[in-house]
Parts: sequence; structure tokens; C-alpha cells
Amino acid sequence: MAFDPQPWAVVEKRLDLDMLAQTESIFALSNGHLGLRGNFDEGEPRGLSGTYLNGFYESYPLAYGESGFGFAEDGQAVVNVTDGKIIRLLVEDEPFDVHRGHLEFHERTLDFRTGILTREVRWRSEAGHGVRVKSERLVSFVDRSVAAIRYEVEALEQPVRVAVQSNLQANPSDQAGVSDPRAGRALGDVLDPILDVEHDLRVVLAHKTKRSQLHFAAGMEHTIECTGDATTLTQCEPDLGRVTISVGLTPGQPLRVTKLLAYHWSAHQSIDWLRDQVDASLEVAGSQGFDELAEHQKDYLDDYWERANIEVDGDPELQQALRFAQFHLLQASARAETRAIPAKGLTGPGYDGHAFWDTEAFVLPILNFTKPDAAKAALMWRHRILPSARERAQQLGLKGAAMPWRTIHGEECSGYWPAGTAAFHVNADIAWAVERYVANTGDEEFERGPGLDLLVESARLWLHLGHWGADGAFHIHGVTGPDEYSALVDDNVYTNLMAAKNLAAAASAATRHRSDAARLDVVPKEVREWHEAAEAIYLPFDERVDVHPQDQDFLTHDLWDFDGTPLEKYPLLLHYPYFELYRQQVVKQADLVLALFLCGERFTLEQKRAAFQYYEALTVRDSSLSACTQSIVAAEVGHTELAYDYLAEAAFMDIHDLEHNVSDGLHIASLAGSVMAAVCGMGGMREYDHKLVFRPRLARALERLAFRMTVRGSLLNIEVRHEEATYELMEGEAITIFHHGEKLALTPGRPVTRPIPEAESLPRPSQPKGREPVRRGSYASGRSGAAAPTVRLSR
Amino acid sequence: MAFDPQPWAVVEKRLDLDMLAQTESIFALSNGHLGLRGNFDEGEPRGLSGTYLNGFYESYPLAYGESGFGFAEDGQAVVNVTDGKIIRLLVEDEPFDVHRGHLEFHERTLDFRTGILTREVRWRSEAGHGVRVKSERLVSFVDRSVAAIRYEVEALEQPVRVAVQSNLQANPSDQAGVSDPRAGRALGDVLDPILDVEHDLRVVLAHKTKRSQLHFAAGMEHTIECTGDATTLTQCEPDLGRVTISVGLTPGQPLRVTKLLAYHWSAHQSIDWLRDQVDASLEVAGSQGFDELAEHQKDYLDDYWERANIEVDGDPELQQALRFAQFHLLQASARAETRAIPAKGLTGPGYDGHAFWDTEAFVLPILNFTKPDAAKAALMWRHRILPSARERAQQLGLKGAAMPWRTIHGEECSGYWPAGTAAFHVNADIAWAVERYVANTGDEEFERGPGLDLLVESARLWLHLGHWGADGAFHIHGVTGPDEYSALVDDNVYTNLMAAKNLAAAASAATRHRSDAARLDVVPKEVREWHEAAEAIYLPFDERVDVHPQDQDFLTHDLWDFDGTPLEKYPLLLHYPYFELYRQQVVKQADLVLALFLCGERFTLEQKRAAFQYYEALTVRDSSLSACTQSIVAAEVGHTELAYDYLAEAAFMDIHDLEHNVSDGLHIASLAGSVMAAVCGMGGMREYDHKLVFRPRLARALERLAFRMTVRGSLLNIEVRHEEATYELMEGEAITIFHHGEKLALTPGRPVTRPIPEAESLPRPSQPKGREPVRRGSYASGRSGAAAPTVRLSR
Repeated sequence: MAFDPQPWAVVEKRLDLDMLAQTESIFALSNGHLGLRGNFDEGEPRGLSGTYLNGFYESYPLAYGESGFGFAEDGQAVVNVTDGKIIRLLVEDEPFDVHRGHLEFHERTLDFRTGILTREVRWRSEAGHGVRVKSERLVSFVDRSVAAIRYEVEALEQPVRVAVQSNLQANPSDQAGVSDPRAGRALGDVLDPILDVEHDLRVVLAHKTKRSQLHFAAGMEHTIECTGDATTLTQCEPDLGRVTISVGLTPGQPLRVTKLLAYHWSAHQSIDWLRDQVDASLEVAGSQGFDELAEHQKDYLDDYWERANIEVDGDPELQQALRFAQFHLLQASARAETRAIPAKGLTGPGYDGHAFWDTEAFVLPILNFTKPDAAKAALMWRHRILPSARERAQQLGLKGAAMPWRTIHGEECSGYWPAGTAAFHVNADIAWAVERYVANTGDEEFERGPGLDLLVESARLWLHLGHWGADGAFHIHGVTGPDEYSALVDDNVYTNLMAAKNLAAAASAATRHRSDAARLDVVPKEVREWHEAAEAIYLPFDERVDVHPQDQDFLTHDLWDFDGTPLEKYPLLLHYPYFELYRQQVVKQADLVLALFLCGERFTLEQKRAAFQYYEALTVRDSSLSACTQSIVAAEVGHTELAYDYLAEAAFMDIHDLEHNVSDGLHIASLAGSVMAAVCGMGGMREYDHKLVFRPRLARALERLAFRMTVRGSLLNIEVRHEEATYELMEGEAITIFHHGEKLALTPGRPVTRPIPEAESLPRPSQPKGREPVRRGSYASGRSGAAAPTVRLSR
Repeated sequence: MAFDPQPWAVVEKRLDLDMLAQTESIFALSNGHLGLRGNFDEGEPRGLSGTYLNGFYESYPLAYGESGFGFAEDGQAVVNVTDGKIIRLLVEDEPFDVHRGHLEFHERTLDFRTGILTREVRWRSEAGHGVRVKSERLVSFVDRSVAAIRYEVEALEQPVRVAVQSNLQANPSDQAGVSDPRAGRALGDVLDPILDVEHDLRVVLAHKTKRSQLHFAAGMEHTIECTGDATTLTQCEPDLGRVTISVGLTPGQPLRVTKLLAYHWSAHQSIDWLRDQVDASLEVAGSQGFDELAEHQKDYLDDYWERANIEVDGDPELQQALRFAQFHLLQASARAETRAIPAKGLTGPGYDGHAFWDTEAFVLPILNFTKPDAAKAALMWRHRILPSARERAQQLGLKGAAMPWRTIHGEECSGYWPAGTAAFHVNADIAWAVERYVANTGDEEFERGPGLDLLVESARLWLHLGHWGADGAFHIHGVTGPDEYSALVDDNVYTNLMAAKNLAAAASAATRHRSDAARLDVVPKEVREWHEAAEAIYLPFDERVDVHPQDQDFLTHDLWDFDGTPLEKYPLLLHYPYFELYRQQVVKQADLVLALFLCGERFTLEQKRAAFQYYEALTVRDSSLSACTQSIVAAEVGHTELAYDYLAEAAFMDIHDLEHNVSDGLHIASLAGSVMAAVCGMGGMREYDHKLVFRPRLARALERLAFRMTVRGSLLNIEVRHEEATYELMEGEAITIFHHGEKLALTPGRPVTRPIPEAESLPRPSQPKGREPVRRGSYASGRSGAAAPTVRLSR
């Protein structure tokens, strides 16, 4: 895939049918509640047809070759609900199909400022009839249940008779499952029809899932503009609603169909209720019309970009990729509202539509600064599933709450516990997100309420999971850290330090809000125990090589034979058994290096340098969550050019499909990670002890990096150039920041510029053979809007 | 279950229908090729109906909640084949059914010297018709495919008309699966009928499995003896063969039906071939008749007992239990002939009929001394599956051969790899069995051939699995040892030491048999590497507590909260997640303690004492394979009375159903373990460096222990009393042994008696609360043939 490096859009100039599924993900529209993959209006050809409602899932029994106590019993998978995107076109007696006839022009544009996906087509049938088709599609950020499509078809040289079929289609006969464990599960037809009604140009269908017993209703309404006499036919069946419009067109006088869609679902409400909601939403949307919906969409996005915009001068592809990331980040989270932010957002069925720890570790930190209400809503979802997490802890014989490793509805759905249930760090990641959200917003009401609940129950878990060793330190054994090429290890540094943060945060919050803590039966002794465990957390260090081991035993393991590993054997997890991966020194994704970033206060610069160097040589980046973290730490320890290479890799991950699996959805956490890599990597932003510090440093090839962030209501604009950085308070109260160690007071209307100290010159670390990041810095410099993307992972 | 403690039989005097499934296992007959559970002749009531052919299995796809590279893809389960045991009886118009009418007498006897299961019944129908029924059943040790039943029915006071229906029944409608992961998998009707033919009183049915595509044929033939005029009817259907005999009986003139059964199966031969074999076997059996078959059976067993007999004076229950163990050990292995010896023998569907490591670690050591041809045959099975094991290693990216953790046909069937594939010690256990078999028999032809193949391929695996650490030692990381409450550990002592034995044995054999080794492309460098790795194997030791850790990190883990664990939560694996078990100090079964036994030469007596004491406090014996090992090491380090308690527990495991799961089959390895506990525990037998040493010491309650063993063709009889032991060479060439350190030369006809030195007095070690073994020594003394068994595990 090669997109023009436009700063505010992804434009596909040439249709590549081999890349259909990938572009469906890239052109997906969503508001966090309703998601439409970028399927063609006419429905086919398709990679994966997809329409998703956040939180709407089907469950299925999880089978095991050999089961064990506490293994998750039920899986949950996102459901491809009724497809309202379909608008088929018949030109004279031939269906418009990009496979047939002559496609003279085909362009798709996703505009980050309008939030509209536009498609323009010029097509000539086998019989020679030419038409121009233009469709505009939006999923409204303002009207949460509503999507709209404006579909225009015009005869080219000669009059033609066309028929437009606008469908609602449930239970499509789609593709079977695939063997990649990261892809979604194909459950077949899971929707039982309950209701189908039509009225004029409106159809409403309602279905329920067979096993999870969730209900939803989907409706479509139409307006038609044309000069000729159009005939219409409205039909409905249990799994199909269809409005057919037939009209003779003359050149210059197009047919314009506006299709409004509304979706509502519930586990509790009756079908009648849901149907009424759908009809009401269609009325509200209809009263606005497409133009007004589009206008509101634009306003919403203007406001977002005002607070989130990142600018990169000197690398148009990176500029585009970062805005692409920010746009999809918003799409995944804006209106999720106490539902999860899934790993793939609502862009595809990958990972079964589950949410994981990376939402808290990668996505929320960015939302905190750019869309704090969405960060809060995501944490409210965690709070909503706290009862399930308490139950899970009890089932496992643990204390407090054990958050699921992967889930939609709250129950643990991990079918492989060593890389699921055992990865308890998810609890500390959530606690950390709570702490960061409260610190960044000052939302005390949240802290005293749901925040405290989350902190206390996770602290209780850690106190149970850990134990006091004979060495007087607090140890946590037998858990799995972020790196999935190790499992069930003792004293994983990341887990230990994040658990200590969790324990300390709970102790602090419970001390500051005693009466609220009493609600949870927190007693002083318990707080003392949290505090003591946090203080005494064990941090292994290997004196022999002067490096922190990823876990207690990691550095004693054999080194993976990287030189003997052919490139086609990556990602390793698809070609080697866990057994081999676990017992050797090979790292899927930043783990100790993620600790260097998130728990940076625990390490000296020298320790960070040594550790980064060591783990660089072992990290194969088989996870999309690695490059962003490596970029950040590379920047911090002084490898600015390497940081740039990793930033580009992180940013291009999805828009250029570096991992070859964007077909089943975008990697939302990786997209957030690329923004984080820009802000915390080259931007050098950190928050330590309520202090906001910057140590920016620009890669040679770039001219300027600027980004915005809101901290406790104050909107900052940070501009980084090679020699200096400028900090400006755009809005809100005065704020203190640090620039390369210097304290700066920012007041309204008074930007502060400070020089950036010269960087040390360090030798570049080496990576496993064949897994080196592409060097971007060396040749991106000086180019303007070049054509092809210049980054590829070498496989 | 309470059986009279008869020395040569299990006699059930009173029918307990709640114990039906358990007694079906206990009364199971088998010759290692064909197995019949002890179901009633009339087929019902039944616990689990079972007829098994060794190696005959159905496969099924193994499902995973989340799959991973190298996960076993297919399961294999033993098939309940066509049931030939069924003989139903109609008395006038009422079916003989122990549930109905009046059961005036019911006794079942399994005689270890005749190998015949006898059942005697006196029953009166609701209408008052009385009959005596006697059945005798045998599975021939001599005619491998043949079983025979002699069924006699006699009118009691008045004439009655009876009908006897003798059936062959395939695809019975049986019970569904159960949730205990140790039980077998219910696959439903897996047999497709191919052929059913009848001729006179003979029926032959042939079937094939649906997925594994194995064929078998089963046939029955009958002879009838009676005075009246009997009518007969022979019928056959695809899943049913039936011979019905109807006759009027007068008291004193019984009907006697002899039913001969023959079974043949194959993966390759045609159905015609198999049918011919069945008919031929029936002819051969028919030409002998029941009496002659029984006579050959007796001869076979006389010979066995001559070489295997154990005598225990002073504890009749133990005497019975040990002979029960020896009898079933023979039944499981006698005619297996290049098929596996499954964990449950052919006594039930438990563990899906799979064979595990414990065959080599527990069963073969006993067979080596008592039935060496069966030990050899079992190793030949391992040799037969070597190609699968090589393939498996290759699939996993390993060198050499990786033997399956559990299998019937050779392919890995473990559906949970951390306790399956990762338990690589199975390879060393097999190598050790090869080494012991060769040492005990001097079978050089085997050593140069299959033995060398097995040693070399497993040594290659170990050299790949291990690595040289910075400390100059050879380490093995990330594997699972025998204790299934730990997994994926570094430097498991048992695995390391057994791997070292394996490497050394391979090096030695390849050096001694260079030309044979050349067949396997063994080069001197490779042999040197094996030797070096064996020499440098890492043996962790914790100076802090002066104990060998089970694995590198074991002693740093938190202690399991035994005091907080209620008794009903045992076995722990059914009530706690692996996660909790793995990361704490809790031991399912002897692991380090098994190393103390099998690799005893690596530890000093003081180290053994300290380790035994330490692990006693952590070992919950949730595995049937624990007590026997604990008995042996307890005896060695000086806890003679505790050794006796564990010996009794091991010996009573199945005959008194201590683990509450004998219903799905006997634990063959545990039965062997109990014999081993007698011989190596109180008998104090060890083999170090080709030396046969004894350090016998008798528990107070016993008067005498005697056992026989054949070493390199020399049959020894060892008699242990409190003050002295007598060694006698019964047959074969002179041999040197050691008695408590003293070298003794044994020559024919000259028994040698030596005093047993006084034992040290040691404090008794403690066990986890509620898991202490029942103290047998304290009260068994002086009792004669008491009624109820006096050992119960306290749950």
C-alpha cells in the first residue's frame, strides 16, 4: 500500500484488490460505539465485511485438549452485526462491480478533518455505459448511534437506467476462520432474527445473539434526490431489508440517495424499546440531513485537532502517519462511554474484539492529554467490570480483584493462561492509568469513587500475589510480564515495579481519602502493608553484566540463536514452540525497556543505557507494541536517530501494514504508541512526582516537531527545533514545567524558548540479525512529498 | 471395599453396587493384548463396560481456547471395542438381574495363581424360581487373542426353563464423559460396522474406527453341555451377534456354556485376513476347551510366581496387596509385545489409555527382575515409535528424538504442554530403562540395536535442550520435572541428573559399540560433548538451608498455606489453579525425592536425610506415584516405620481405592511402585555401578519379607528378618552382592545369612496437615487375617 503523504488525509489513488482487507481497516469509520469497516458500498469484492457495536458480543465455550481448574470457560467474540453499508448499483442490466467492465477512475479519501470517507468512481460497463459514482460516508461523533451515506450516481455520456439497492443485511455468508491465533474467531451465523418492519423508505431489523442473548436493532432511512421519475420498492425479510430505487438518468442530472443508519443494542431492554430508539435516531438524523451531520462532524474534529494536533516538518509521511494515528485513536474511543477500547478498536474482528492491558498502558496516556473524558470513560468501563474481576479473583483463590487479560464483557476469555491469567500486570497497568488520569485532570471525584475502588482492589491482589522473601524483600513469583516470549517467571522487573506503584498509589489514595476507603473496609494495617510492600519491592540486578534482568533468571538463560534464525521464521511465535521461546534470551516486545520508560525514576541514566543496549540485541519486535517504547527509551538514553527510526516504524505499522495483519483491524495501542513515541521520545516528555518535564531532541532529518497537550485544564503547545524548544500556554492557568532540568513557569501569552543542549555521541546499539529497524534518518532529510513509503520491516 | 486378606486372591463376599466401577477395575482380566473389565456376565448393572485391545485407538482433534505453535493437534483414546463378555440369563420369564428378585449369595474371586475370575451366585426370581450361576472367565496368557468364559446355570429346588443369550455387542450406549481431567474421554460411537457373519454357534463381527481407520474383528464360539434338549438360535447384525440357548433345567443337571472369544486388530491387514485370524484362533481355543486353557494359564502363572513371588509375614493385607500388584503388573505387560504398557493397563479408560513416563520409571524396573522379556517388549515399543519422536523433535525445532508425554500410537497427545511436552524427563526415563534392562539381562544384541538408537537420540535431545552457563556448568532450563505442581523451571534436579545419566549412557554405549553408532552418524566429537555435558551437569544446592532445591528457584518461593487448606480441597489440582500451585512450595509427588532414589549416588546420606525431611513437609501426595518413592527413601535414610506406612499406602492405593479413582482403571505404575517399595525400601535393594547392593531393614510389625529376582539369569531369593537377612542363589551362575556394605559371593546351594545392623533412631518427619500417612506399623503387629483394611487417606 502506498498512499500519498498528504498531511490531513489518506488518499488511495489506485485500487489494489490484493490489499482490500487492509484498506478496509485503514478506511474504517467509527465513533467508539459504532464501527463500519471501509467496505465498498456495493458490498463486494470484500476482504472482511464488518459492522460492529462496541460491547456487543457472542459467547462460545472454550475447549481444551486438557482442561485445568480455573481455565476460562467461555470465550467472547465481537459480532459482525447487520450491515447497513450496502448500496448496490445496476447500470442498465449490468451490476456495477470493480471486477467487471472498465474502472476508469477509483479514488478513496479518508479526511482527518471532516471525518468523512469519500469514494469517487468512473466506471464503464461491458456494454459501454459510463457512470460516475460518488459516495460519502460518516459515522457521527455527535449522534452516537448514527451513520450516514450520501450516494450519488450520474450518467456520463449517454442516458442510462439505473437501479440502486440499499440493503440491511444480517448473517452474511462470509469467510471461514484462519489459523493465525491473533485473528478473530469465525462463529458462523450467531444472530437470530426477531423483527423486521418496513415503512416507506425505512426498514428496521432486530436480532438477538444465540448464546449471549444480547439484542440489537438496526434501521435505515432514505431520501432521494433526482430529476427523473424514480420508482421505489421497500422489502423486508428476517435477515434482509432492501429499498430499491430505479430511475433513468441523463448526464448532468445525478441520482442522489442519502442513507441514514441507526443502531441500538442492549442486554436488558426489550426489542420494542430498541426499535423505538432506532426510529427516533433516524428521525433526529433525518431532520439534520447529511450536510448538517457533516458540519457537526467537522466542528467536533476541529475541536479535537485544536487540542491534539501534532506537526512534523521534514517528513511528510510521518506527519501523515501520526495524524492517521490520532484520528483512529479518537475513532476508537470518542463515544465508547463505559465500554472498552478494544485492541483493534471497531475496525476489524482481530483478537476477537477483546480489550487488553495495552489500552491502559498505551492508549489512555495519550487520551489523558488530548481527550481526557474518553480516558475517564475507559476507566469507568474497568470500574464497571470490577464485580467480574472480584469474582474471578475469588474463583482463583486470590484476594481483591483480578482483571481479565482479554475480554469484551468483563469475564476472563484467555484460552492460554500462561500468557493470559498469569499476566497479572494488567492490574497494575490499570492502576497506573487511574493514577495518571487523576494527576493529569485533578478529577478528585473520580479518585475518591471509582478510582479508589480500582486502586484498592488491585493493591489487595498484589499483596496476596507477592510474598516476603528470606532477603527481606517483597517478591512476586510465577507471573508473566509484557514480553510474551517469557512466561511464569519470578520477579519480572516490570511487574514488580508497576505493582509497587499500584500499592503505593492505593496507600496514598486510601490515606488521603479515609472515609471513602472505609467504604471498602480498608483498615490502617492494610494500608501499612501496601506501603511496606511497595517500599521493599525486589528489583533484581545482575552485577556480573551490570544490567537489570527482565526477571530473576532471565540472564542465566541461553541466548537465542539469532544468526541461525531465517527471516521467514518471524514472527517467532508462528514457527517455534513457546517451550523454546520461554527458556532462552529472546524478547518479543519491550518489557524491561518498558519499565525503563514507565518506571524511569527507578533507574540511573547509566543503568538505562546499559539495559537498553543489552535488550536491543535480544528484542525481535514481533509485537506492534515494541517499536514505540524502544523509540522513547532510545531518545532518552541518547540514541536520537535510532529513536527516529523506531518512531517511523511505530507510526507506519498500520498505514503501511508492516506486520502484515492490518487486514483484521488496526492496532489501536500501537497507533497511540506512535504518538507517545513522538511526545515522549523526541519530545522527551515525562511526568515524575507531579512534575512535567521535557528533554526534547530532534532527529537530524526533521525540521520541527510540535505537539499540544492539556494538563489540568491548561493547554500547552510545545515546539521543538534542533537548537531550541518553545513552550507556550495556549489556554488555562499558569503551569510549571522543566526543560532539560531547568524549571520554567508558563503564563498565558508568554511563550518561553530555551536552547537544547548538545547531545552526547553514542555508538548505535545492534539488534538481532535481520530485525534492525530501517534507517529513516539517513535519507528522509530534505525530501518533500515523496511517493512511496520508505520504511519496510525486512520480511 | 473390604476384601478378605487372602494371600493369593481377592474375594468379594458381599456385592456393593456403589462400588461397581471400582470392582470392575480390580477384577479386570488382561494379558497385555486383550483386556476385559470385571463387568457382570449379564452386562448390567455396570459401572463402566470395557473391552480393550492394546494399541487400538480412535483419534480426535484437540481443541484449544488459544492455540500455539507445536501444540499437539490430535488426541488418541482407547476404544471400548466389541463386548464379548455378555451372557444374559432369563429364568422362566424373568431376567437375572442383581437389582431384582433375591440375591441369596454373590461372591467373586480373582485368583492370582489360576488367573481365573470366578463368580458364584444364588439367585431367586420375584416369582420364586431359584438358580445357581457360576461363571469362570480367563484371558489367556498363552493364546494372546483368546478369552474364555465357562458359564454354568443350575436349577435349585424345582425345574426351570432358562434362556441364555450370549452376545457380541459393539457401540454400547454407555455413559457420557466426566469432568475429572484424569478420566477418559467419551468419544461416542466410533466404530463403523464392516462385517457380521454367523455359522452354527459362531458369530464374527468386524468394525473399523471412523477417524484413525483401524480395523478389528471379534468372534465368539460356543459349546453347550446339558442333559435336556436345548434349542439354539444364532443371529447377527452389524453391531450385534447373539447366540440364544433355551433349555429346561432340573436340579442337579446344570446347563454349561463355554464361550470362547477371539480378537484381532490391525492398521494394515484386510478385514478378510482379520476374520480368518479370528476363526483360526477360535478353532485353536476350541480344540483345547476351557479346562486345557485354564491348565496352560496355571502353568504360565506358576512359572511367573516362581520368579516373582513376594512374601510378607505379619501383615496379611499387605501380603495380598503386593501379590495383587504383581498379578496386575503381569496382566498389563505379559503379551503387550511392542505395544505400550498404558498407565491403566487394559483395566479401564482412564488417562484415555495413554502410556506415560512412569512405565519406564516404575514398571520396567520391576519387570526387569521378574519378567525381563516383557520389559524388553515395552522398550521395543519405544523403539517402534522412535520415528514419531524424531519427527516431533524436528517439528519443535529440537535435535534427536522427543518422546511423547502421553500417547497410544506414538504421536504427542498432551493437550497441556507445560505439563506435557515440557516434561522432557520422559526421554531420560526411557534411556534409564534401557540402561537398566541391559545391565540386568546383559542383552547385548538389544544394546547394540534398539537400545543404542534410543540412547543416542535422547542424548542428542539433551545436548540441544541444555546450555553451557557462564559458571561453566551444563544447565537445562524451562522444563517440567515429575512434580506436576511445578512447571517450566530451570535446572530441575531430577531432570538434570537423569539427563546426565542419559548422556553418559549414550557416550558409553557409543564408545563400546563404535560400528553400531556409526549407523546413527555418531562422531567422536558428539560423544565427547555428551560426556562433557554429563560430567558438568549443574546440581543446585542451597547453602542457606543445606538442602537441594527441586529446581534452581524452588526454595525461594512462598510456602503453600497448608494450615489454611481444608482437607476437602485435595487433590489440589481440582481446586486451585496451576498458577497458584506453580509459584509456591508445594509438591504433588516425589520429584527431588525420586532423584534421591534413582540418582542416589549423587547425594550423601546426610544430604538425603535433610532433603527427605524438607520435602516431606511439602509433599501432599496428590499423585499415586508418590508414596512408593517416599517409602523407599524413608527406608534408606532411616525412617523404617514411615517407610512401612508409605509402603502400605502404595500397596493399598488400588485394592482399597485410596485415591477414589480406581473406577476408571488401576494405576499400573503405582502397583509396580508398591513392589518396588518392598524390594528397594524395606528390602533396601539398589544397583550402583553394576553392583547389586542390599541394605534391608524390617518394620517392627512385620516378621519376614522375602522376594525373588533374576539378575543376568541368576534367580535370587532374599529373605529379610529383623536380625538377619538370607541370600540364596536358586538358579543360574554365581553372583556377587553387597549386604549393608559387605561383599557376598553367592553360589548355588549355599544360602548366606548376615546380621542386619542396628538402626539409628531418628525423629519422624512431619507432613502437610491432614496429609500424614496412616500409621500402620503401630497396630498391624500381631494381627492375623483381620477383616477391614486399616488404611485410609484422610479424605
